[in-house]
Amino acid sequence: MRCRTCGKKAAINMRHHRLSLCSEHFLEWLPAQTNRFIQKHVMFDKTDRVLIAVSGGKDSLALWDILWRLGYQTEGLYIDLGIDESITYSSRSQEFAQSFADERGLKLHIASLNSEYHETLPEMAMRTKRGRDNPCSLCGLVKRHILNNTAVNGGFDTLVTAHNLDDEAAILLANTLEWSLEHLSRGQPVLPSRPGFKRKVKPFARTCEFESAAYSFLRGIKWMPDECPFSKDSKQLYYKAYLNEWEASMPGTKLRFYNTYLKALESGAFPDGQEEVQVLEAQRCPNCGQPTITGGLCAFCRLIVP
Amino acid sequence: MRCRTCGKKAAINMRHHRLSLCSEHFLEWLPAQTNRFIQKHVMFDKTDRVLIAVSGGKDSLALWDILWRLGYQTEGLYIDLGIDESITYSSRSQEFAQSFADERGLKLHIASLNSEYHETLPEMAMRTKRGRDNPCSLCGLVKRHILNNTAVNGGFDTLVTAHNLDDEAAILLANTLEWSLEHLSRGQPVLPSRPGFKRKVKPFARTCEFESAAYSFLRGIKWMPDECPFSKDSKQLYYKAYLNEWEASMPGTKLRFYNTYLKALESGAFPDGQEEVQVLEAQRCPNCGQPTITGGLCAFCRLIVP
Repeated sequence: MRCRTCGKKAAINMRHHRLSLCSEHFLEWLPAQTNRFIQKHVMFDKTDRVLIAVSGGKDSLALWDILWRLGYQTEGLYIDLGIDESITYSSRSQEFAQSFADERGLKLHIASLNSEYHETLPEMAMRTKRGRDNPCSLCGLVKRHILNNTAVNGGFDTLVTAHNLDDEAAILLANTLEWSLEHLSRGQPVLPSRPGFKRKVKPFARTCEFESAAYSFLRGIKWMPDECPFSKDSKQLYYKAYLNEWEASMPGTKLRFYNTYLKALESGAFPDGQEEVQVLEAQRCPNCGQPTITGGLCAFCRLIVP
Repeated sequence: MRCRTCGKKAAINMRHHRLSLCSEHFLEWLPAQTNRFIQKHVMFDKTDRVLIAVSGGKDSLALWDILWRLGYQTEGLYIDLGIDESITYSSRSQEFAQSFADERGLKLHIASLNSEYHETLPEMAMRTKRGRDNPCSLCGLVKRHILNNTAVNGGFDTLVTAHNLDDEAAILLANTLEWSLEHLSRGQPVLPSRPGFKRKVKPFARTCEFESAAYSFLRGIKWMPDECPFSKDSKQLYYKAYLNEWEASMPGTKLRFYNTYLKALESGAFPDGQEEVQVLEAQRCPNCGQPTITGGLCAFCRLIVP
């Protein structure tokens, strides 16, 4: 296998793109691809202040590295969820994120669930029904709330997450198996800002996990190698495994699934889902001021207000 | 496991319905369920002349048996595709269909591809690019054309096929993985008649393959046990296997996938797909008169006209 650009020995073969590249040209290609996707979907430009959610894993560090090299104005946010029981997951993840930021002179904000709300995620999961049933769903809710709050309070223009193609395809498959119109109508890589919510974008939505891992490895980024101890039962990993099987026998399945979905969205599929979202957001949480789907406290504040 | 109705030993446990029934009550339950589905979607009534496509397999014979017992006016259509090379598939299937009809005094029409168009399906598959690439797609096209033609020429009101839940879920999954809006906008169990096309309905669309097999077995119906020799490479079987895995670990997955899809359709999802279909059908095939998506001959006539 040879690099398509220079003919040297290839370091990576991307069957879904029918493209092999050497290390040097892959490290050029992925940032260029990412930048094209950012520009195509008008995610942000170099005058914007961008807050990127950083977990210490390969995806968020690879993306932050790329945005930094491309010259975007980024600051990072690490959310310490206090998952340090069976393995020291959160504190080690934070170290990887902090080292990455320090090496590049980048600013990393730290939000600690325990310091701000006097409870770790495992404690909150034990205390609440939602957490006991599905800690990953609780964690998603907590992270979305804190990310958005930090972006609003810090005056950022745009919030970036490093969801990759594998994440997006798995979420899409799960939402499709239940035809959840509310979710299906909001799967774009750009969610425009709305009252109370900052603009949210996903520059890696067309980048495979495999590509972000290869980028981090070839760039010499040190990332947290362990998975969250809660994730082993997650639905998302369950569907990822199937999508990986399909990808292996039909290369390009994930990308085609995601790209054709975006086209369907653009053509106006799920018109009712969009309306539903607009109606739901008319109300505000009396505690935190974020939009909420119920009349009273938002889902996050219902967790933390006694 | 006990029958919910009478408490005797159950013959079947339907985990997706959380329902166990003995043979007697299952043989009552499935026709009643089927009739409720027919009435809910206003598929046809007892004044309609109904043509049912019969393959000699468990699904179509179980459904024909049920429609006959419910008192609907049905005639069957068997299409002899001439698949009699590696195994005598078509001729044996026809025998099962004919015996079934004879035992009940029902009328079975026979359409022979070879007699009418001077070519068997395997020959047509070898001759045409579409057939070589995907004989199942060719077969679907041929059957749809002949079914519709027979219904139009015979003055039937409605065309019934015995697609079951496993078929519908597999087709839906395949169409969803490519977000094929044209197909997704037309997955209802009732396709109303349109100029050139008879009304098409699927009374078994919520009935599992497992249920139709159990019905045929418990009712003593003899059905063709072999699969079509072409089907082993079909995409539909590929996706059925995955849906079966999900069903085993999460009972109800297939039914939820299908039911929530129908709700999404009802709420107006894929409006563009619908429009597209209407635009496409404005043209007629100069050879057979059926609507066509291209300016000239329809896809079927392109196969058979030299």
